[in-house]
Amino acid sequence: MTDMQTSSTPTAALHPLDQALALEGTGPGRYQGRITQAYWNMVGPYGGLTAALVLEAVMRHPDLLGEPVALTVNYAAALAEGAFTVEATPVRTTRSTQHWTISVLQAGADGGAPQVATTATVLTAQRRETWSGADLPMPEVPGWAECAPVPPVFPVQWLQRYEMRPVAGMLPAQWDGSEHDSTTQLWVRDAPARPLDFPSLAALADVFYPRIWRRRALRVPAGTVSMTVYFHAGAELLARTGDAPLLGQARAQAFHNGFFDQTGQLWNEAGTLLATTHQIVYYKE
Amino acid sequence: MTDMQTSSTPTAALHPLDQALALEGTGPGRYQGRITQAYWNMVGPYGGLTAALVLEAVMRHPDLLGEPVALTVNYAAALAEGAFTVEATPVRTTRSTQHWTISVLQAGADGGAPQVATTATVLTAQRRETWSGADLPMPEVPGWAECAPVPPVFPVQWLQRYEMRPVAGMLPAQWDGSEHDSTTQLWVRDAPARPLDFPSLAALADVFYPRIWRRRALRVPAGTVSMTVYFHAGAELLARTGDAPLLGQARAQAFHNGFFDQTGQLWNEAGTLLATTHQIVYYKE
Repeated sequence: MTDMQTSSTPTAALHPLDQALALEGTGPGRYQGRITQAYWNMVGPYGGLTAALVLEAVMRHPDLLGEPVALTVNYAAALAEGAFTVEATPVRTTRSTQHWTISVLQAGADGGAPQVATTATVLTAQRRETWSGADLPMPEVPGWAECAPVPPVFPVQWLQRYEMRPVAGMLPAQWDGSEHDSTTQLWVRDAPARPLDFPSLAALADVFYPRIWRRRALRVPAGTVSMTVYFHAGAELLARTGDAPLLGQARAQAFHNGFFDQTGQLWNEAGTLLATTHQIVYYKE
Repeated sequence: MTDMQTSSTPTAALHPLDQALALEGTGPGRYQGRITQAYWNMVGPYGGLTAALVLEAVMRHPDLLGEPVALTVNYAAALAEGAFTVEATPVRTTRSTQHWTISVLQAGADGGAPQVATTATVLTAQRRETWSGADLPMPEVPGWAECAPVPPVFPVQWLQRYEMRPVAGMLPAQWDGSEHDSTTQLWVRDAPARPLDFPSLAALADVFYPRIWRRRALRVPAGTVSMTVYFHAGAELLARTGDAPLLGQARAQAFHNGFFDQTGQLWNEAGTLLATTHQIVYYKE
């Protein structure tokens, strides 16, 4: 962190996401960073930020082969404000693919030995150009410019890090326990706007509020315990998408005794499906 | 393995899946097993079997808390016939959840030091009874009894371990490069029939042939590199489902430069969504 803060780029000019993703190498595949209030959620940082941090550690590794294809993040414990260590290990490398395991560690509140707070696996690959195609067209919805931005619906920091423009299925107007389908569609981008890359796309995969809130119109406690993101774009396409908004869509498939799933998609304005994502979410009632 | 073979239950009476899942404890969270031809695919065992093995190792661990909720398996390298070691570690346990990391190791063909062939993460949890519901009803399709079984379409061993009754979207009749949507629906159960449990359900999540074959009517090389399964049922419901068939449905969302995704569901005959699953698959053209 010291390096960054004393570099010639003033900290004030750095995007909040880039500040949050600042990592200092302390050994092979081992980095230190710091959790701040910038992306704070209820009891820890925004889960999308943790996903971005995991991916950032892989992408900084000197032995990296290719680009991210798949990411699974397991939220074993809430991260606290302050220093953390992230370890990224390439466990198996073939000619064109590389499998990674990643851990985020943090000392306990009592200052004890660091404990694993997050586990993750990542697949990176050197892609070759092949026939490509989508099997899920972008839904026909009003464009970003036609949709009105909404202010953050809850006073949590991370919601201020995104501009969201609801299309359909936003938070229930009344918490009355009436049942609805669980689908949400919204336009979203970083706030302030920031050119898209793999870590920011991973973070965007987690922007959807808990599906149980919409399904039941009840604001019960809920939190993601595992999220998977599949990337269907290379760095070049992400760069071409730039800081334009993405269309996000998410729905649940099943709610069962304390855990529900969410399946989602993120398209760019041109209608290209950049990422598909799934998560399993704890809920209490 | 020796224990099993000398036990009072004759080996011949064991279901092929139970034979394949036989593990011998060799240390805390450390087990040895053996890959045979029983579930052999093209260049290694059926990916669903590897998923089941990973889960079996977790479920045999003396410190296990609760039941499986989520499983991600990364196929880093093909497993070979012969002995393997699986290591399952509970990295973080809370009051009601437990996060696991798992590795399957096997000595290289040159007899060198064991290498990681498979990585995985598992979430287990002690569920409490809550409001539960589905958001994706089972499609209306002809029942198991109304659909005709098909013989294995390729001469690979694992296809003989399942009885499949296609409903829609089976293999193209002609490999002519004509484009189709990627959806497949089929009834499926273990052959011979076997009472459903978590490992066998995990294995069933991988029964769908590669979506690219259907999407393009071209039989190009393809192989799963990562699969995630979310369980929406407890052991009791699986036991109640017994050895009855499940309805499986799978489709792709995007195909991009060598990797496509698959999203799928498995319902029991009563229409309860038991598991949802996703995978990312390598393809070559």
